[in-house]
Amino acid sequence: MVKISLDVMGGDVGPEVVIPGAAKALERHPEISFVLFGQKARCEALIARYPKLKERSVFHDCEVAVGMDEKPSQALRRGRYVSSMWRSIEAVKTGQADVAVSAGNTGALMAMAKFCLRTMANIERPAIAAIWPTLKGESIVLDVGATIGADAQQLLDFAVMGGAMARALFEIERPLIGLLNVGVEEVKGQEEVREAGRMIREAGLDTLNYFGFVEGDDLGKGTVDVVVTEGFTGNIALKTAEGTARQIATYLRSAMSRSLLSKIGYFFAKGAFDLLREKMDPRKVNGGVFLGLNGIVIKSHGGTDAEGFAAAIEVGYDMARNGLTQKIENDLKLYHARFPSSVGPEAA
Amino acid sequence: MVKISLDVMGGDVGPEVVIPGAAKALERHPEISFVLFGQKARCEALIARYPKLKERSVFHDCEVAVGMDEKPSQALRRGRYVSSMWRSIEAVKTGQADVAVSAGNTGALMAMAKFCLRTMANIERPAIAAIWPTLKGESIVLDVGATIGADAQQLLDFAVMGGAMARALFEIERPLIGLLNVGVEEVKGQEEVREAGRMIREAGLDTLNYFGFVEGDDLGKGTVDVVVTEGFTGNIALKTAEGTARQIATYLRSAMSRSLLSKIGYFFAKGAFDLLREKMDPRKVNGGVFLGLNGIVIKSHGGTDAEGFAAAIEVGYDMARNGLTQKIENDLKLYHARFPSSVGPEAA
Repeated sequence: MVKISLDVMGGDVGPEVVIPGAAKALERHPEISFVLFGQKARCEALIARYPKLKERSVFHDCEVAVGMDEKPSQALRRGRYVSSMWRSIEAVKTGQADVAVSAGNTGALMAMAKFCLRTMANIERPAIAAIWPTLKGESIVLDVGATIGADAQQLLDFAVMGGAMARALFEIERPLIGLLNVGVEEVKGQEEVREAGRMIREAGLDTLNYFGFVEGDDLGKGTVDVVVTEGFTGNIALKTAEGTARQIATYLRSAMSRSLLSKIGYFFAKGAFDLLREKMDPRKVNGGVFLGLNGIVIKSHGGTDAEGFAAAIEVGYDMARNGLTQKIENDLKLYHARFPSSVGPEAA
Repeated sequence: MVKISLDVMGGDVGPEVVIPGAAKALERHPEISFVLFGQKARCEALIARYPKLKERSVFHDCEVAVGMDEKPSQALRRGRYVSSMWRSIEAVKTGQADVAVSAGNTGALMAMAKFCLRTMANIERPAIAAIWPTLKGESIVLDVGATIGADAQQLLDFAVMGGAMARALFEIERPLIGLLNVGVEEVKGQEEVREAGRMIREAGLDTLNYFGFVEGDDLGKGTVDVVVTEGFTGNIALKTAEGTARQIATYLRSAMSRSLLSKIGYFFAKGAFDLLREKMDPRKVNGGVFLGLNGIVIKSHGGTDAEGFAAAIEVGYDMARNGLTQKIENDLKLYHARFPSSVGPEAA
């Protein structure tokens, strides 16, 4: 059994997406049980529509819902201890849940997750890992926006954590790890990135396989299983890829509806287009994973639908089922046992 | 008449791409005249095949060709004064040409361009500007990899230079300028980016219209005419977008060849697919523009074909014809007249 806590009020829509999403995930994985946090008045009738979900969940009434535009500090002030977002995270801390899922605003969710769960020993800063669709399948890319800037040690921590996540998600023994860099300079890239490369190579960890530097176009190719970068660049890469996919989908739609012939062609090739649509469906890879905290929190896109939210729940399900937190802890321990000098916050 | 110097030896292929490319550009713009730099033995017979090009060009024999893998320092040592790359740039300095175009390696080309042309007064570092296809048409994105990192003043310089390029290329009076940033943090983005935003706003320049921050997905939307960022992030955004476009094209090809029905559909909709292919054709937006030097240098993709190289020539043609260097000089003067304290290298 995997216990998942949900911030039912999170997202652009809230309960009307989260509850049907949970019902969908439960249909596919009947071993899930839910702990739901939300405003009773808005949720009760909705939950009643899904008898199986009702049976497999405990509902907790929370007065406060964190707004999508609330600043992290504001959300913390107003919503700590009492909001559906906070309490869904807290459920992971108390062991009521194995993983928390929220479509609420990223800044607030990260702030609350850090405050409530705290960062792991030896980890200075958490990261958000995205699952990136590639020509070979999927890769993990981190950090996609938890923190701006990262020094070499933090990039190395990201590599270890991303490696653990890859082992949990893809079930490969020694995931291939690359550091995102640029290839046009004589002295290639930032000093931190080069230093991180040296450190990872030197560490010679058995839990990962260091590939070297990768560039922006390696992301879609799936050159490596895990791409490591700091949050500013990672966030821009992620949004650039999403934007490019939408741009091409727009071109394609407009080309296909342009003439009678193209419409006929579309009719015949509809199966192929459906396949393409499925390939490019952003809902399928919904779910940013917060790494480096004492517990797993999954961030769903705020604007997703029930299908997308179900996918985020399923990412959480996979992470919990495969013991992500334990894997990360073990990998970090292995690394720090070998390099006792290079510890995180304690050393600072 | 616009005089264009070409590094005939540059690129993965060299003369066999550059010379037919020049011939194509000349067909479309008969007012171009060329100054060609290359190894005579490899070029002579090729040029003879294009009588019009031969008539409209002067050829200079150069012994040295810069290799695609040569490090900038190595290329400078070996190729300064004597290589086709150097001499094509030098032609801009001496006034023999209005603009130089090379498909040679970016690092070497930038190093030689900096060494030969020098940066403009008040400009500390040059930038490479890319022309980015968007849903609304085209935008300019800079820096896409000339230098790693940029402080607020340098980002402001990029904004002024990008604005001047937009006025030259799109013929708009006050291009809309955005700073690339991330939107997930309470304190959004890097300090330099926020500071640059404040400085641009404060400057209140008549030559540009400051929009504010944009995110990665605004690139493809065409939210602004000019997107400003430092070279590391810009390079990764550019390559991520190129990679995503190739990834989707691969999905599409494989979907369309999957079944008999999809093949029939493809047959009917071929016109639409041709249109899409044209929209997504990377050759059409070939040509990175080096900004901030005393002269214009255009970098073509190394792996492009004659059509792509012709497009790079045409970017150079547009830039020269519309007086890009003068526009940048004027805009920088206007800015520095207003803020005499904020000068570049002299102040350092």
